[in-house]
Amino acid sequence: MHKNTQSKIRVGILGAAGFSGVELIHLLANHPGVDLIFASSDQKAGQPLSRLVGRTGSTDTSHLCFCPAIEAENLTRSGAVDAVFLATPAEASAQFARKHKEAPIRIIDLSGAHRLRDEAQAQAHYKLPANAAAYGLPELFREAIPRDAKLIANPGCYATAAALALAPLLREFSVQTQSLVIHAASGVSGAGRKASEEFSLTALRDDYRAYRVLNHQHEPEIVQTLSESSGKNLELTFTPHLIPVTRGILVTAHARLEQAVQADAIFEAYINQYGREPFIDLAEQADDIRLSAVVGTNRCQIGFTLQDRRIIVCAAIDNLIKGAAGQAVQNFNLLFGFPETESLITLRRYQS
Amino acid sequence: MHKNTQSKIRVGILGAAGFSGVELIHLLANHPGVDLIFASSDQKAGQPLSRLVGRTGSTDTSHLCFCPAIEAENLTRSGAVDAVFLATPAEASAQFARKHKEAPIRIIDLSGAHRLRDEAQAQAHYKLPANAAAYGLPELFREAIPRDAKLIANPGCYATAAALALAPLLREFSVQTQSLVIHAASGVSGAGRKASEEFSLTALRDDYRAYRVLNHQHEPEIVQTLSESSGKNLELTFTPHLIPVTRGILVTAHARLEQAVQADAIFEAYINQYGREPFIDLAEQADDIRLSAVVGTNRCQIGFTLQDRRIIVCAAIDNLIKGAAGQAVQNFNLLFGFPETESLITLRRYQS
Amino acid sequence: MHKNTQSKIRVGILGAAGFSGVELIHLLANHPGVDLIFASSDQKAGQPLSRLVGRTGSTDTSHLCFCPAIEAENLTRSGAVDAVFLATPAEASAQFARKHKEAPIRIIDLSGAHRLRDEAQAQAHYKLPANAAAYGLPELFREAIPRDAKLIANPGCYATAAALALAPLLREFSVQTQSLVIHAASGVSGAGRKASEEFSLTALRDDYRAYRVLNHQHEPEIVQTLSESSGKNLELTFTPHLIPVTRGILVTAHARLEQAVQADAIFEAYINQYGREPFIDLAEQADDIRLSAVVGTNRCQIGFTLQDRRIIVCAAIDNLIKGAAGQAVQNFNLLFGFPETESLITLRRYQS
Amino acid sequence: MHKNTQSKIRVGILGAAGFSGVELIHLLANHPGVDLIFASSDQKAGQPLSRLVGRTGSTDTSHLCFCPAIEAENLTRSGAVDAVFLATPAEASAQFARKHKEAPIRIIDLSGAHRLRDEAQAQAHYKLPANAAAYGLPELFREAIPRDAKLIANPGCYATAAALALAPLLREFSVQTQSLVIHAASGVSGAGRKASEEFSLTALRDDYRAYRVLNHQHEPEIVQTLSESSGKNLELTFTPHLIPVTRGILVTAHARLEQAVQADAIFEAYINQYGREPFIDLAEQADDIRLSAVVGTNRCQIGFTLQDRRIIVCAAIDNLIKGAAGQAVQNFNLLFGFPETESLITLRRYQS
Repeated sequence: MHKNTQSKIRVGILGAAGFSGVELIHLLANHPGVDLIFASSDQKAGQPLSRLVGRTGSTDTSHLCFCPAIEAENLTRSGAVDAVFLATPAEASAQFARKHKEAPIRIIDLSGAHRLRDEAQAQAHYKLPANAAAYGLPELFREAIPRDAKLIANPGCYATAAALALAPLLREFSVQTQSLVIHAASGVSGAGRKASEEFSLTALRDDYRAYRVLNHQHEPEIVQTLSESSGKNLELTFTPHLIPVTRGILVTAHARLEQAVQADAIFEAYINQYGREPFIDLAEQADDIRLSAVVGTNRCQIGFTLQDRRIIVCAAIDNLIKGAAGQAVQNFNLLFGFPETESLITLRRYQS
Repeated sequence: MHKNTQSKIRVGILGAAGFSGVELIHLLANHPGVDLIFASSDQKAGQPLSRLVGRTGSTDTSHLCFCPAIEAENLTRSGAVDAVFLATPAEASAQFARKHKEAPIRIIDLSGAHRLRDEAQAQAHYKLPANAAAYGLPELFREAIPRDAKLIANPGCYATAAALALAPLLREFSVQTQSLVIHAASGVSGAGRKASEEFSLTALRDDYRAYRVLNHQHEPEIVQTLSESSGKNLELTFTPHLIPVTRGILVTAHARLEQAVQADAIFEAYINQYGREPFIDLAEQADDIRLSAVVGTNRCQIGFTLQDRRIIVCAAIDNLIKGAAGQAVQNFNLLFGFPETESLITLRRYQS
Repeated sequence: MHKNTQSKIRVGILGAAGFSGVELIHLLANHPGVDLIFASSDQKAGQPLSRLVGRTGSTDTSHLCFCPAIEAENLTRSGAVDAVFLATPAEASAQFARKHKEAPIRIIDLSGAHRLRDEAQAQAHYKLPANAAAYGLPELFREAIPRDAKLIANPGCYATAAALALAPLLREFSVQTQSLVIHAASGVSGAGRKASEEFSLTALRDDYRAYRVLNHQHEPEIVQTLSESSGKNLELTFTPHLIPVTRGILVTAHARLEQAVQADAIFEAYINQYGREPFIDLAEQADDIRLSAVVGTNRCQIGFTLQDRRIIVCAAIDNLIKGAAGQAVQNFNLLFGFPETESLITLRRYQS
Repeated sequence: MHKNTQSKIRVGILGAAGFSGVELIHLLANHPGVDLIFASSDQKAGQPLSRLVGRTGSTDTSHLCFCPAIEAENLTRSGAVDAVFLATPAEASAQFARKHKEAPIRIIDLSGAHRLRDEAQAQAHYKLPANAAAYGLPELFREAIPRDAKLIANPGCYATAAALALAPLLREFSVQTQSLVIHAASGVSGAGRKASEEFSLTALRDDYRAYRVLNHQHEPEIVQTLSESSGKNLELTFTPHLIPVTRGILVTAHARLEQAVQADAIFEAYINQYGREPFIDLAEQADDIRLSAVVGTNRCQIGFTLQDRRIIVCAAIDNLIKGAAGQAVQNFNLLFGFPETESLITLRRYQS
């Protein structure tokens, strides 16, 4: 437990000007146990944080400017921080973690660099070696996250929603091989800040489409997470889509049960898994799950509809919070002995 | 063939103030072979069409007002029209068709009243008896639509997109039982004009969700169409979603092939079916299919991505045009001997 | 000053299911000095708050259900609350305030019922008598708000933005009579929850228009506020518009100065007025002011551009927060001796 | 008059891949008297038109690829075209017009290069000399556009809407000096295709702001047009805003009349000017004017509200059609003796 209230945890953010980085600044500026030491961005170096972030939170971050990555590395090396959040691309994250392997810091990596344990998949999707970092999905693996972990692989946004949606079902019940078909849709912030025609308002506002069909890097991550949490060898197909909103992910997962089961029994499996989770809301049916109920929060809303042996499970999260920065802070809280909900439970949904 | 260019086909529209009805007015106002006799709407009765529709087309409809349904029935009975489009709810359509069974008119019904051939499904979804009306999906059943048909069941919007997406695949190749999983998303106009909080801009603008999960009336219609066109007994699961745009449907269909097949062979099946179709565009892969390429037109864009035995087929249409009014005019053109593309081929997509 | 930390202020909300009411619930649920006793809504009576609001804040409101207005009145009469927020229509607010004139409670009225001091204007716009309640715009009238006021008239959303935009300019400098022309635009939530075709996503998503042209009830409120704060008799024209976003107001105010003035002198007037205000951000020019910088917060962003004697001042606020519920809580904090920023300063803008 | 129906007008488009260029392709592809010879775009050179435009119109443009500007110049020099539309930036337009001054072609320039007659303004806003090209706003200057004009300056989008809104008022009535204050808002396509963070969906979707305050190049164009059409020396202030929609401009113009006037007299002035105009719709009041009624069409909708001497006039157009490509085709029709409405009158509004 973090008892010494006099000394705050000194924290740095790399890649702080991206969408997840800005979310981290917002969340950490309101975290009573955190002292934000640096926020790096080569592109915005020298600009005050407030230009991108506004004035935020009870803690004053208005004195801070984005620093270049090189300065962030120097500060890290010099012992100026206790923890670093990596909101950088996978390759930069991998490099930072390698370089600072021996430094007395904890790293929470929001990129995909340290998520995959299968060498072929890690190489195929990230051109990086496989990794055995702790996978920071507390609702499924809380006990398995070592409190002294040096490196946490923060889960991907789609992978978080899909895994939370299906884990209780797949652990307690058998589904037909290859009946697992997951479709998901994400708001445009999932793609990061883009300076391209393709992501302009005129190109996207009236559009909707699938992308990286049969080729998305979160498919193996979902397979890995659900196989581990269920103890079964799973196959599934995952197809992401782009919706013209800023934030939010909704996952719609299809499965066919091997045997007829009562809806109540399935609901009980979800209650057993999530009944005491502060960030998970169970709904009565799949139709109840919607983006607007979770966007702005660290919550995940889950509901299913069963008909004979067919089941559709829907889950929604805010891709930048529970799918990125919020979950990273949740992991940070776990590592440093803060209440897991610190600076996260007061978040409110955006829609009135 | 419609040869006598002096006399135009006299046409009426019931339910003309709904989204599909207004589309019909737009399309028929630019149709050189059509004389629009009435456009009924009990709710807007007495108001000039132009208030809802604007000035539209080369034909002047500015003299017309919406008439009450009862007047539309009287005009129909009195022989004032040769053809009637029903853009009414299923029950009203069924009733109109029954009443005017003997009248010397052709009816094109945009509702679901006359689509389903299975008694149980028709009762379950529409509380109506099963029906054997000609199913007006020209790209799949052009030869089977009798040119003297009294009643055409115009296909549902989702069913049009899903059937066009999958028909060539399912006819030429075998897919694993129960591997057919179709997710689809529609713009909000699919729900019709709504005076409800639930469909307000504030409720929907930042939202996305599944609805009528495992309970949508287009599932049996898709099963029926694809079973007929492929000659196989199919099962599938269909899940619709609501996206915060005005128009457009995208279908994402998943299947697993029984045997390994080359992508070229599949592409050939699509070319064989659709190569000469004026309204179908084949793309190179599923990622290429997007709403913005078809919204505003009567076109359907189709593409697939294959990986081992897994295949994802995407298809996009404008739900109000190819999914409703445009297809109805296409059927009208077939029945009355006009070129099938009349008043439809000049439609342009909305997005520059 | 509110010193006794053991006893919280017991608070009730009338009209709690509207947009401003829900904002109040969110803000008060995170207010450490507040105990929420009731939240009334005849339409949603009996439903748990959480259905509309989600789980919110550090304080648990999940036990509460919306109660009918009659119960709220009974609780008020029985001494169960110390303060009541009225998020009701003007007539209902006026009636509640009359009925509970003698009750030992403080009332903060978010409606327009108690804002206008001119009899003719009050009658014309609200069909109510003029009123002399304290006008709760702290940045302009902080000293004039009695700390023991029984009734606070919380300013209108447009009036807040327009008055904050122009007050320093008009107090320190002379502008040509009738050169004051204010255009403003608001997100759709400004109209309240609506169950109507006119406010459906399909009707509004691609639209933009002026409304209540030369007939909006905030014009006399702006005139009154700016005349009082400047000590001058002003005339102006105010035209509101509807933009297809959920939240936010931007005011664009035009004036022509009587005499040439340096931009620096004007900027100094703004600094003098607002330099220490926690919720006001001054920008370098009118172009810098934008909705996305303030939506989600209680902040007002102001900037001007001067050219010869022409000046354009822009100001932006979140219509539901600084334009309604947030300002109401700011006034509540003033009345009860809390720091004025309590539960408001941690709000963050929605956009990353 | 264009009588010889056998020979079509051979047309080229420069800058054909921008928003206005693509609109021109759509409009000209459906024009029965046009043969599209080239469509140039250095950026998209070599790509088929259909990739950007889709299949469009009754005329087949699917054989055409975008050509580089140099090829367009060669084709022009070699006598391959009778008319050229310039949808290029002002400098490129000016250069093309200079180079091909002696060529037997007609040029319709959609840029601002040839609009301003005042040297100082032309230099300030376009760094180009003043120009005396025919100003192609047919509703105000039809008789003044020489049918053998070599060069037409196609009006700016804001300038078109503002001039049409105010011309009848200012010609027939006197307004107070400096009371003319015009606010306008445009959809994002007005800025052209942008590959920048600033124009991304995430940056703009929830935003609204003024831009180029007191510094927009359309202000002198509006002054010039209204001064000419009214025969008065006018001053006015114009402020543009950006709304998060794709298309459409709404102008809200404020004026104060020198003397009291009846609304009927003003309405009569508008009827006199516009009563027989095929593209102008007069509404009953300013509140009736909205983007959704004109987007997709070449129409301009105008309405005013009068109160004492204050008047607000609103006007709406589609910025890419009546504000650019549609008006250019209207001018083309005038020059070549086609009915002025050719290929324009069948356009329908996008919204049902």
